[in-house]
Amino acid sequence: MQDFSIAPNGEEYPLPTEQESKDELTRIKEITEQQRAKGRTIVAVQGMGFVGCVMAAVVADATDEQGEPLYFVHGQQRASLRSYWKVPIINKGIPPVSSSDKEVPEIFRRTVKDKQTLRATWLNYAYEVADIVVVDIQLDATKPAFGDAAQGYCDLSAFRDGMRTLGKHIQPECMILVETTVPPGTCEHVVKPIIEKEFKKRGIDTEKYPPLIAHSYERVMPGANYVSSIRNFWRVFSGVNQKSKDIARQFLSNILDTENYPLTELGSTNASELSKVMENSYRATNIALTLEWAKCAEKIGVDLHKVRAAIRKRKGTHDNLLRPSLGVGGYCLTKDPVLANWAMDAIFELDQELPIAINSVDVNDTMPLHTIELIKEEFDDLKDLKIAVLGVSYLENLADTRHSPSETLIKFLNEEWALVKAHDPYVEYWPEMENVTIQKTLPDTLAEADVVIFAVGHDEYIELDPIEVVDMIGKETLIVDCSNFLTDDKIKQYLEAGCKVKGVGKGHIEKM
Amino acid sequence: MQDFSIAPNGEEYPLPTEQESKDELTRIKEITEQQRAKGRTIVAVQGMGFVGCVMAAVVADATDEQGEPLYFVHGQQRASLRSYWKVPIINKGIPPVSSSDKEVPEIFRRTVKDKQTLRATWLNYAYEVADIVVVDIQLDATKPAFGDAAQGYCDLSAFRDGMRTLGKHIQPECMILVETTVPPGTCEHVVKPIIEKEFKKRGIDTEKYPPLIAHSYERVMPGANYVSSIRNFWRVFSGVNQKSKDIARQFLSNILDTENYPLTELGSTNASELSKVMENSYRATNIALTLEWAKCAEKIGVDLHKVRAAIRKRKGTHDNLLRPSLGVGGYCLTKDPVLANWAMDAIFELDQELPIAINSVDVNDTMPLHTIELIKEEFDDLKDLKIAVLGVSYLENLADTRHSPSETLIKFLNEEWALVKAHDPYVEYWPEMENVTIQKTLPDTLAEADVVIFAVGHDEYIELDPIEVVDMIGKETLIVDCSNFLTDDKIKQYLEAGCKVKGVGKGHIEKM
Repeated sequence: MQDFSIAPNGEEYPLPTEQESKDELTRIKEITEQQRAKGRTIVAVQGMGFVGCVMAAVVADATDEQGEPLYFVHGQQRASLRSYWKVPIINKGIPPVSSSDKEVPEIFRRTVKDKQTLRATWLNYAYEVADIVVVDIQLDATKPAFGDAAQGYCDLSAFRDGMRTLGKHIQPECMILVETTVPPGTCEHVVKPIIEKEFKKRGIDTEKYPPLIAHSYERVMPGANYVSSIRNFWRVFSGVNQKSKDIARQFLSNILDTENYPLTELGSTNASELSKVMENSYRATNIALTLEWAKCAEKIGVDLHKVRAAIRKRKGTHDNLLRPSLGVGGYCLTKDPVLANWAMDAIFELDQELPIAINSVDVNDTMPLHTIELIKEEFDDLKDLKIAVLGVSYLENLADTRHSPSETLIKFLNEEWALVKAHDPYVEYWPEMENVTIQKTLPDTLAEADVVIFAVGHDEYIELDPIEVVDMIGKETLIVDCSNFLTDDKIKQYLEAGCKVKGVGKGHIEKM
Repeated sequence: MQDFSIAPNGEEYPLPTEQESKDELTRIKEITEQQRAKGRTIVAVQGMGFVGCVMAAVVADATDEQGEPLYFVHGQQRASLRSYWKVPIINKGIPPVSSSDKEVPEIFRRTVKDKQTLRATWLNYAYEVADIVVVDIQLDATKPAFGDAAQGYCDLSAFRDGMRTLGKHIQPECMILVETTVPPGTCEHVVKPIIEKEFKKRGIDTEKYPPLIAHSYERVMPGANYVSSIRNFWRVFSGVNQKSKDIARQFLSNILDTENYPLTELGSTNASELSKVMENSYRATNIALTLEWAKCAEKIGVDLHKVRAAIRKRKGTHDNLLRPSLGVGGYCLTKDPVLANWAMDAIFELDQELPIAINSVDVNDTMPLHTIELIKEEFDDLKDLKIAVLGVSYLENLADTRHSPSETLIKFLNEEWALVKAHDPYVEYWPEMENVTIQKTLPDTLAEADVVIFAVGHDEYIELDPIEVVDMIGKETLIVDCSNFLTDDKIKQYLEAGCKVKGVGKGHIEKM
């Protein structure tokens, strides 16, 4: 019986047979030889996830001044039931991720089909022929207790497995460029010892061939500028020794627009790793601060969104002040402070915590409960209350639902036995909340709702006319604006239609 | 026996006699009549402190499109022993504050002598003739326990006295513009009831004449752009009713460059007051975050200053990240979060605190102890250790010592019986630390020092040559760089000269 890996579009791909793997080996050898003959450097990208696959395409797209491709890229994806489908999909010239960025399908067609500089494979043999391996393995933080991020940790076992695979296969002078966001200290204290150990097992003299390991973090923004956010951005990097730094600098200079976005070299991989998680901790902390003040503003009749706009006019000193919302989601801000805090003890064995950063994660993670508090100011009991949640992605105008605050919101509403309907124009299926059906239409979602929560500020929601919304609901209801998309005029329209309106950080509504 | 008010330059001014006060009253009447005849609006500024006196001059300097002065300003300063000297000094056309901004003496000469639109007086009668009173009374927060800002409070009694004085004297249609940074809620819940009560005592119908009260906060930066930081900056304002807002908008438009720095009107004085303290809480929080990460960086070999520079390259989203230092000083960042936190309970009677902002104050206030920890890594006992502290102002290239972190540093060093010498090229006399003699020369300060703390990054210190410094010390010593002004090259020179070097956020030195 054959096992199939099923793509998101439903297509079934049988896992490769032994014979197919043999043929693939021959094919990789041939291709690599051809490509080397053309003077190209061979790159393997480990992990065809959200970042890795586009990074692979960006590397494959890089050219010299004459327009000649510089690299041939093997995109490595293990032949697992869950993800093997990515290999044949990529090799058709199709991206394995959906994106609102038109450049994504274009760059895959161009590199796989036109230039033929990108090819996916399931074989570790890709690492044996590589001059450079770019590591884009997913690495998560685990937060075992809701609202207590200080207990959070990072399970490195899969990442360690990935490094062992590299240590078993790469050439002694191959450079490993870790692009995954890792706990500070990972390259020095995790990757390097593993590679050295595997090298020694293989009889490689690590005095003569000290492992070449660099770290450079991406700053990918999901959305319409996905490819550009890889290529056109200020990169930070470092390496565990001078040669690693030199190779990394050259490589990054070749693939990125370093003329307009100059590289920043830091002194050690510790510094580069710290830089990434501090960047995101900075944003997490600023959001937490805003949330704290939003709660105050609500109680003293102040619209914190207008205060924020006033403060942000001080360009250069105050314009990073972030906005109040339902809460904080996504892949980075919810975990990076945890990676850093955990590393201090688990990697460096230091009694040095990051309480401000960690507390921010708690404030942000628990923020959706504040919206429930707002509802409870109007309803003693949420049991059987019909609640429409508009928006389940973690950010406006995106399909990405990872760690979405709407997930926390709905989980806690369910605990109170509220009757929740969810809607999102960008999301058809919610992988993190499989039991929640995403409604197809707004009328289906809104009809008879006792409470309507505007959770995410998608453009489609911003454009909604209050009179039409009240019509769809069919009754006077409580409107909760978590994403500051109701203008004062629209709030007045809802109030005139007999609705109550509340909003995160919108204390001025009471006086309207 | 006559009492004298003594100016900083030592000049003695006898407090005014009764007869002088009578003559002054006549004089104010005359001047006011003359000025009204010229079509000018009469403004009184309450409090000739750091902000008030320059604000008075800026108002007095405002002209219409034909270059005709719009306002005549009475700068009101009570005839107290401590501050009366400001009245005769100002009336000579001399600013009562010292500043590195050349515009300060210029604007006083111009408004007092040339235009004759500014005059100081000690009489409350100034309020009786005023169309607008600008309130610039000093208002401090009290933190009774070091490192526990949650216990902080604001003693409003002097401020209330000031408001009662206005209520007793102003005309019913005079507008009070509060410019002092006040706890949120102050205009609505403190100023307004006091004025109403005093109006009623005077038989003024407060239905017909509801008090006109507005709030607009300054964003004064001490230093070379002092006057410009009042005039050329984005102002935020609001009023307790529509008429107050209208008068405030007109007044601010007349005196500030609102063409290039448009005004922001907020919905209520609560909002405007909150905006100011949130602005500074934002900065206080960002510094606290950086300090937390600096401590980690030091322990894992990372130069956080270089990491910070890397992160700040992300303009618009990450460039407000502030720098690690000895600690946080000055008048605003050390108190404004306390004003806000205290107001939630004391003014609004709400059980709503601002833990992130308050915790930041604690982190910042206690940060100088971290520098002492760095010293203790090298010396078991600080008793009789000779420690030179370079810089006692709260910021580089300034004379301002208010709430300087060097104050905390030296207090705690004294508690450990260290022998401290302090130096600062900008400070001759340290009002908050009268027992500390400021050394005249660097050789006097540095000779035989066991530890040299570069506390403040004054340019004079940055330019110092390590070899000369070691010469002045005359021995191998411990150098602590709290203000990131030692470049890596200079650090190497100190190390080569046999010194030890440590620095706040500079973990990379260990590996040099």
